[in-house]
Amino acid sequence: ELTSSDFMLPETFQGLNAYQWASIFESLLNSQRLLLWQSVPAELKSSVLSEMREDARGHFLSELSQTNIEEAVVTGSNTEVVEIFDSLPEKTIVRLIKKLAPDSQSQVETSLSYTSDQVGRYANQDVYTIASAAKVNDVLQELKTEEHFQDSHAYVVIDGHGTYVGEVFINELLAAEGAQTINELVHKADTCISSNLSLLEASNLVRGSQRSLLPVVDEQGRFVGNFSIQDALDVFQEHYESQLAHLGQVSDEDLYAPILLSARRRAVWLGINLLTAFLASAVIGLFDKVLIEVVALAVLMPIVASMGGITGSQTLTLAIRGIATGQLNSSNFNYLRRKEVIVAALNGLVWALVVGAIAYVWFDNPLVAIILALALIINMLVASICGIVIPRLLDRVGIDPALAGSVILTTITDVVGFMVFLGGASVIFLS
Amino acid sequence: ELTSSDFMLPETFQGLNAYQWASIFESLLNSQRLLLWQSVPAELKSSVLSEMREDARGHFLSELSQTNIEEAVVTGSNTEVVEIFDSLPEKTIVRLIKKLAPDSQSQVETSLSYTSDQVGRYANQDVYTIASAAKVNDVLQELKTEEHFQDSHAYVVIDGHGTYVGEVFINELLAAEGAQTINELVHKADTCISSNLSLLEASNLVRGSQRSLLPVVDEQGRFVGNFSIQDALDVFQEHYESQLAHLGQVSDEDLYAPILLSARRRAVWLGINLLTAFLASAVIGLFDKVLIEVVALAVLMPIVASMGGITGSQTLTLAIRGIATGQLNSSNFNYLRRKEVIVAALNGLVWALVVGAIAYVWFDNPLVAIILALALIINMLVASICGIVIPRLLDRVGIDPALAGSVILTTITDVVGFMVFLGGASVIFLS
Repeated sequence: ELTSSDFMLPETFQGLNAYQWASIFESLLNSQRLLLWQSVPAELKSSVLSEMREDARGHFLSELSQTNIEEAVVTGSNTEVVEIFDSLPEKTIVRLIKKLAPDSQSQVETSLSYTSDQVGRYANQDVYTIASAAKVNDVLQELKTEEHFQDSHAYVVIDGHGTYVGEVFINELLAAEGAQTINELVHKADTCISSNLSLLEASNLVRGSQRSLLPVVDEQGRFVGNFSIQDALDVFQEHYESQLAHLGQVSDEDLYAPILLSARRRAVWLGINLLTAFLASAVIGLFDKVLIEVVALAVLMPIVASMGGITGSQTLTLAIRGIATGQLNSSNFNYLRRKEVIVAALNGLVWALVVGAIAYVWFDNPLVAIILALALIINMLVASICGIVIPRLLDRVGIDPALAGSVILTTITDVVGFMVFLGGASVIFLS
Repeated sequence: ELTSSDFMLPETFQGLNAYQWASIFESLLNSQRLLLWQSVPAELKSSVLSEMREDARGHFLSELSQTNIEEAVVTGSNTEVVEIFDSLPEKTIVRLIKKLAPDSQSQVETSLSYTSDQVGRYANQDVYTIASAAKVNDVLQELKTEEHFQDSHAYVVIDGHGTYVGEVFINELLAAEGAQTINELVHKADTCISSNLSLLEASNLVRGSQRSLLPVVDEQGRFVGNFSIQDALDVFQEHYESQLAHLGQVSDEDLYAPILLSARRRAVWLGINLLTAFLASAVIGLFDKVLIEVVALAVLMPIVASMGGITGSQTLTLAIRGIATGQLNSSNFNYLRRKEVIVAALNGLVWALVVGAIAYVWFDNPLVAIILALALIINMLVASICGIVIPRLLDRVGIDPALAGSVILTTITDVVGFMVFLGGASVIFLS
């Protein structure tokens, strides 16, 4: 039984919107989600499912009964149904499509003809449109009873073939003569989104447009639906959350993902990291003789690796953002690489002096202090170059720099750090 | 001289919107920004400045002439002017306020009466409002010539004292009798934003509302302005970008921040990391005797620290998101901590076997392999507990977990890792 004290549930569920419901569901166990599902108003169920984060929705749907899923799907808009379908097995989708009303069915089929990365899949088709040949008077008459929720001052105008013509503004409709046709008032929109465009590019277009929504148009010029700034916000959030997760070396997972699933997913990241760690160990192993000779080296060597890692990570973080925004490109790459190297050199000099001085006082061994300081500077310089070169190379070969950049960088700063520090020491102390 | 080949400038600047201009400016050096500024259409200048990321705007404004700044400010809306002021020194602000038209001046002063974290500061006051006592006919007449850009189907209604009354929908205006007053048609909005609310909370409200904008109302119930989903998107982006930057141990900086400034800011993060690194070294230093005795320990010790670090980082990343979304709270904290510990235990067992086996084959020393495996399990368990407890404690004392969590966690996993591994080895090999 669900009690409000146990799970921070609100005192009353009245007046909650779909977004708030989705957030509550994400913070519950699957068993609790199933109990609470009965309390969700029927007309919100499809929205709540579509608002949930993908991973949480997937786990919840995997335990929700077929009847419950069907009940939610048949009331949903095409975009909601498609988001729910994204988390269901093919067999279930085929069965559910047949249960939809004919109108919804053809809308959903249009959506599904696009891939999950194309904006056409998520364009809202449930839009009030005005025929370009209509008379102003008739349109104003029709608008009085129009129930479609449309949070915009502009209406989409299409011709008899469904081709997108433009938009008409409400104030111009009011000011026009009743006998004029819409054709005379229509404006071509500044920006249309091509239905094949990627979700992230489409989101950037809406964002830059300063409009609350933009029309999505297919290759034949037909109006597919609207893509709104709310949709764009969802896309951006998912994008940023997955970048954050990958930087933390974890997948973008439901807090309540089943334990074995969580363990298995994280094992992958741990395994990759273990390869890195063994590579670093192998490098250290090359220099076991000098480590026995001068034990201070073993004590100090993590400092070289760690400071290199942070330097590289700083540059990497800015470079990843620069690439994602298109602001780091071939025209300024050389300038920015030079800048990063100079910044690393300045910090390398400063911190090498500090670290060297401390090491000298600690171990009373000037040679160790000098080797440490030099290794630190070299590793920080290498780290800064790698921090900007690696993400650019990854991007060029089509790998997301946020996904792989950090692991590759750490491997290099560990290997180079231990190699330079212990190698240098071997040359000095073993000859 | 600016040439398009050098700086990836578009062939033509025609038709660029403020967001695109801002993005170009962010990807240029300050000297280039000054040259390009002349090409920005006068009516876009204030928007371009307000769209730029804070750090880039600050650097650019510090070199832009007072005349240029004034020219941009006098044409800006209250929200644009306030964002520009956020990057200007107090003295300049005082001087510039006097140059504004009386209307703008009072709008900007209202904005500035709120702190930079309150939504009242960034509410758009330049909104077309309808008087509650007005007649429908007069309003429809007025709407025909209304030039305010308002991307919504609902109009704000206020009474004679400026008190927010509600909103009126365009279709209901059209359907009403001309002699009715607006009062009879007005709807109370589902959600109003209190002007003292934090920007992030206000953004979450707009997001959840499924509306393109919400009214902001002060403590006396007066209408302050609108807060739109576009504004919310800016807030979310800034929030995520600064979280990403902090996870990468860097500030949220302009790609083109002056070199010395960049170096100084990053030096702070490096210095904090150095303390961590020296703490780890000090722990290793405690066990120098056993390191001389068994050099394999020096070779293998980074593995324990590194695997603990990743395990902790995985839990930390999910915990930070859970706290930010309110989905990790006192009601489920214990469950999730238990889950994270079990996940870490499972992965600890698996990887300890792998690592132990490799170490045994490598060094042919069963004791070293056993100590390594045990230390790995212990450190991964400790890391998982710290990964969820640390962000929660930081959040409770009012420190952003994304800012400090990672450094504290790494310190603990390094110290515990070296302590358990080398300490255990000392007990076995030195007794």
